[in-house]
Amino acid sequence: MQSPDELRQLAEDALASLPFAPELGRLEEALRYSLLGGGKRIRPVLCLATGEALGRGPGELLPAACALELVHTFSLVHDDLPALDDDDLRRGQPSAHVRFGEGVAILAGDALLTEAFRSVLRYPSSEVARVLADATQGMIGGQYVDITTDGGLDGEGLAALHRLKTGRLLGACVGCALAVAGLPEAERGPWRAFADEIGLLFQIVDDILDATGTAEELGKTPGKDAAAGKPTYPALYGLDGARQMAAACVTRADALLHTAGIGRSRLADIGRWIVDRSH
Amino acid sequence: MQSPDELRQLAEDALASLPFAPELGRLEEALRYSLLGGGKRIRPVLCLATGEALGRGPGELLPAACALELVHTFSLVHDDLPALDDDDLRRGQPSAHVRFGEGVAILAGDALLTEAFRSVLRYPSSEVARVLADATQGMIGGQYVDITTDGGLDGEGLAALHRLKTGRLLGACVGCALAVAGLPEAERGPWRAFADEIGLLFQIVDDILDATGTAEELGKTPGKDAAAGKPTYPALYGLDGARQMAAACVTRADALLHTAGIGRSRLADIGRWIVDRSH
Repeated sequence: MQSPDELRQLAEDALASLPFAPELGRLEEALRYSLLGGGKRIRPVLCLATGEALGRGPGELLPAACALELVHTFSLVHDDLPALDDDDLRRGQPSAHVRFGEGVAILAGDALLTEAFRSVLRYPSSEVARVLADATQGMIGGQYVDITTDGGLDGEGLAALHRLKTGRLLGACVGCALAVAGLPEAERGPWRAFADEIGLLFQIVDDILDATGTAEELGKTPGKDAAAGKPTYPALYGLDGARQMAAACVTRADALLHTAGIGRSRLADIGRWIVDRSH
Repeated sequence: MQSPDELRQLAEDALASLPFAPELGRLEEALRYSLLGGGKRIRPVLCLATGEALGRGPGELLPAACALELVHTFSLVHDDLPALDDDDLRRGQPSAHVRFGEGVAILAGDALLTEAFRSVLRYPSSEVARVLADATQGMIGGQYVDITTDGGLDGEGLAALHRLKTGRLLGACVGCALAVAGLPEAERGPWRAFADEIGLLFQIVDDILDATGTAEELGKTPGKDAAAGKPTYPALYGLDGARQMAAACVTRADALLHTAGIGRSRLADIGRWIVDRSH
């Protein structure tokens, strides 16, 4: 059994040695810049830990785990563009478009997304890739809502937005592992509910960090959402209220793992590991 | 046996009734705007005609055929952006970013690419999607070379660029059909060589049209490549020289189909059908 941080190192090593399509030529430099510039690797860790809880080793899960981080990185590269969130700082470094120019950043994002599919298409069955594709559309649909909604979201609207924008890909971290493990459909309910709790937890912690962290700690510009008038959990429920909501997520996630018959496992540590980001 | 134009209509109908991911919400409007705004549908027609020559019906080929047009459309939407080719006109209409804004156009391109994978992932095996993913990286790698090379390409460099930027996806139109039909690897050589000839032919005809067509005829801004100092086949070889090269492609493509044991078929009409674009 491996700690989340050990799983993180496995993901880091696999990402660093990914065989990108040779046709990308020197564009590969821009992909590696964005992919290997830090990040907590929450998505691959969640995928690997779910696989482990289902009795599957990292070797089986790594193509999916890498693909999830590739999709996440693609979304960061495109979302940082001036026409979208316009953020010059990412993981403590200049964003891809600042470093390489907008045109190359757009192409690098496209190539990262395509590499994600190349990675999951190493599985003979197309099921894992289907889970990833559906989640990617949810994420894109969420970003569309985000850039076309001028504030005005209440708590419910905010939750619906985040279920798409961040929740769907986090859900796919669990969903891809279920697909790799071939868990029968009838047994997947509590796993999906667990993934929903982790997705909500992640967003609350992210909002808390955005409200309390510095650029140095976060590696990105803090306070942007609040400054743009976008609703956040601390803004809607107060900092203490948001922290209580996060703790309740962890409790419910634990209970769902218990329902799924998962006792002590590193998957059960993931909730607290995510909360620890804010310390 | 169906004429290329009948196959085109099959593709048109299938594209118009594609079930996009519901999570895209109102972003779907931008996808449909770019996907259904005209175009000769050369890629789906080539895929359907190859499948037909291999004894496979359109029903089996349409998920791949639609995916190829989705990837092509994604590339148009992103390449038209100001940071790349900066073209305001596409298929006779305002480009996606002019109609919907840059941010939405970037997301629409991302979603079109992901829909392409969703379409080919309807096949239980992941092989068709792998062919598509590799070709997409070739296309992106070609666009990268195009935007980072300041003129200075000779005929050989130009051919290498086009083999990536347009040739790889046209090759995948044949390659996806070979995968769907499950043709043994040992028999694929002449098919791939045929696809290479079609790719070269397409690019020569496209350059001729760029040099001789009007915006009304082309549905896009003509003469842009020549004005930007990019080498084109008519610029390098003269208009007559380029036309002779196109005719030689058709002759070689016919010979390759003969080698593959394909006699009279609509696939054999594709070369002349592409040349007819310039009439």
